[in-house]
Amino acid sequence: MKRQTLKLAIAVSLGLSAGAAMAADLQERARDMFSAIPQYPPVIDGNELTEAKVGLGKMLFFEPRLSASHLISCNTCHNVGMGGHDYLPVSIGHGWQKGPRNSPTVYNAVFNAAQFWDGRAADLAEQAKGPVQAGVEMSSTPERVVATLSSMPAYVDKFAEAFPGQDDPVTFDNMAIAIEAYEATLITPDADFDKFLRGDKSALDEQEQEGLALFMDKGCVACHSGVNLGGQEYYPFGLVTKPGADILPSGDKGRFEVTATASDEYVFRASPLRNIELTAPYFHSGAVWSLEEAVAVMGTAQLGTELNDDEVMSITAFLKTLTGRIPEVRYPELPPSTDETPKPESMIPQQ
Amino acid sequence: MKRQTLKLAIAVSLGLSAGAAMAADLQERARDMFSAIPQYPPVIDGNELTEAKVGLGKMLFFEPRLSASHLISCNTCHNVGMGGHDYLPVSIGHGWQKGPRNSPTVYNAVFNAAQFWDGRAADLAEQAKGPVQAGVEMSSTPERVVATLSSMPAYVDKFAEAFPGQDDPVTFDNMAIAIEAYEATLITPDADFDKFLRGDKSALDEQEQEGLALFMDKGCVACHSGVNLGGQEYYPFGLVTKPGADILPSGDKGRFEVTATASDEYVFRASPLRNIELTAPYFHSGAVWSLEEAVAVMGTAQLGTELNDDEVMSITAFLKTLTGRIPEVRYPELPPSTDETPKPESMIPQQ
Repeated sequence: MKRQTLKLAIAVSLGLSAGAAMAADLQERARDMFSAIPQYPPVIDGNELTEAKVGLGKMLFFEPRLSASHLISCNTCHNVGMGGHDYLPVSIGHGWQKGPRNSPTVYNAVFNAAQFWDGRAADLAEQAKGPVQAGVEMSSTPERVVATLSSMPAYVDKFAEAFPGQDDPVTFDNMAIAIEAYEATLITPDADFDKFLRGDKSALDEQEQEGLALFMDKGCVACHSGVNLGGQEYYPFGLVTKPGADILPSGDKGRFEVTATASDEYVFRASPLRNIELTAPYFHSGAVWSLEEAVAVMGTAQLGTELNDDEVMSITAFLKTLTGRIPEVRYPELPPSTDETPKPESMIPQQ
Repeated sequence: MKRQTLKLAIAVSLGLSAGAAMAADLQERARDMFSAIPQYPPVIDGNELTEAKVGLGKMLFFEPRLSASHLISCNTCHNVGMGGHDYLPVSIGHGWQKGPRNSPTVYNAVFNAAQFWDGRAADLAEQAKGPVQAGVEMSSTPERVVATLSSMPAYVDKFAEAFPGQDDPVTFDNMAIAIEAYEATLITPDADFDKFLRGDKSALDEQEQEGLALFMDKGCVACHSGVNLGGQEYYPFGLVTKPGADILPSGDKGRFEVTATASDEYVFRASPLRNIELTAPYFHSGAVWSLEEAVAVMGTAQLGTELNDDEVMSITAFLKTLTGRIPEVRYPELPPSTDETPKPESMIPQQ
């Protein structure tokens, strides 16, 4: 062995050992803060995930006739082929109206403590009832939904199968429960980060591990921890420094609109960061398209830290290891409209 | 055997024999006029259906970022889960504008002689370019489409795989060719009528056979024959009696707008009738929701015949045997937008 090669071999060997030790330590610390996305959907209290219910929920998730116009389904803004959302700053809804906030991804939403940017829905079933009725989204009513679903014999049968023993299973509540059951299956296991947490140290490369270390050391983890790296608690956006009005529009006071408590002004649920690479543009305003920029904004706004370029790149590299395996979704066959189906209404109702 | 039972047995036996003979004769006549949907997609001149091209075409078919708003994809109005269309009288497009005509089903469209209600596109590739650019539909431009697709590395790779050997495969033309390749796979074999044509006489019951006989004897078959029972030739809507303006609005002169020939006023391509049970509302105006009513309108408008209720019911029963097996569609994974992706534009351009 030539001297040059030997030196190189020793250096590589030392480097690897030190790297391996660092990775083991990092893994240990990370396991205290985060957990992997499970392989199977979680158990939901009071909503057993039966095949019939999940199947019905999937039909409803893709069902544009839950909207008054018959154009907009859950999947329109929470597109399962597009990271579970719509790559828009804010969604387009009934009458081409714009929603007030960026559409959050449906993937892994079941692991969030509450739903919506302000956490105003306790769970996915409650969440599902919101957009269906919102004038700027699907603009329907519970009565219209029940009339619509009752008009199609295939739906009547599917509700009876999904909710056995109920006298009158085609209800707005059961619609929401079935959608929740389906959405609970929309989880994305096996991200590189999950492999790392489970023991495969090589699942994250050096830069990604550096990013993970920074993510914990700089304090990101204070709000973004757990299985979804966020989605659990509420924090003021602009904890240290308020971002500009382009990113944090003054008209949207976040959780204050739910609690009417002054300390909740501009408070939002910490974003879950799973599949963040697939969910641009970022923030409740959808104002930032670049993940690097979003990371830098978080540094100044929440941590009071000017992250340098290398740090931003490393944290971003780490965040990209949160992209999991998107589940296979077979497009459901929806039953034909019948003479009894309420006709599509595309006019915007007068306020 | 009691006399009563014997008489019944003889009657049943005679009836069955006569019925079987009638079915055989009907089958013979039907085979002269119609053919079954094949099990596999047809060969398209100059567009080989490679796996790479069909896969890319499927992504593009589901790709809302082909529209200026990033909201509307081919699947929005030609929904594979909803009989290949949208159950709307006319589709809703860019800026919530309404299109002028009912959205035809994408299923089995590859078997039509030409595309659109007025046949203005020779094939599915030419068709695909229309809605992408139409101001009331997706409102994009070839340049914007190419910039959009080129901004996502996964699409650049997929185009290179689908169009091997081309220097610059990400083109508007190739987008359309790939979409055509995918749409050619959207065929629905194994309808009861196809089983009947192939030899299974029991595939149609008595009423359905009666409907088929009426369909041929009354003259429907003059325009609705071949594999798609229509989609081949152009005929005036209101050949004998013009329907009311609710069904045939005077402002839409059909093929006249393509040929500028007086004899083409109110001429439309005869509708393909495959899966007609799944494609309400009916006619280019989408004005009629009930299939029975549509059949009756055709009787008076095209045949000058007042079909009685039994005839309408039988023909409708026959038409429902044209519902085939909807193909399994796995929802494609679409790549994330990047910093270079042209931003969504939801404003309606000034004329």
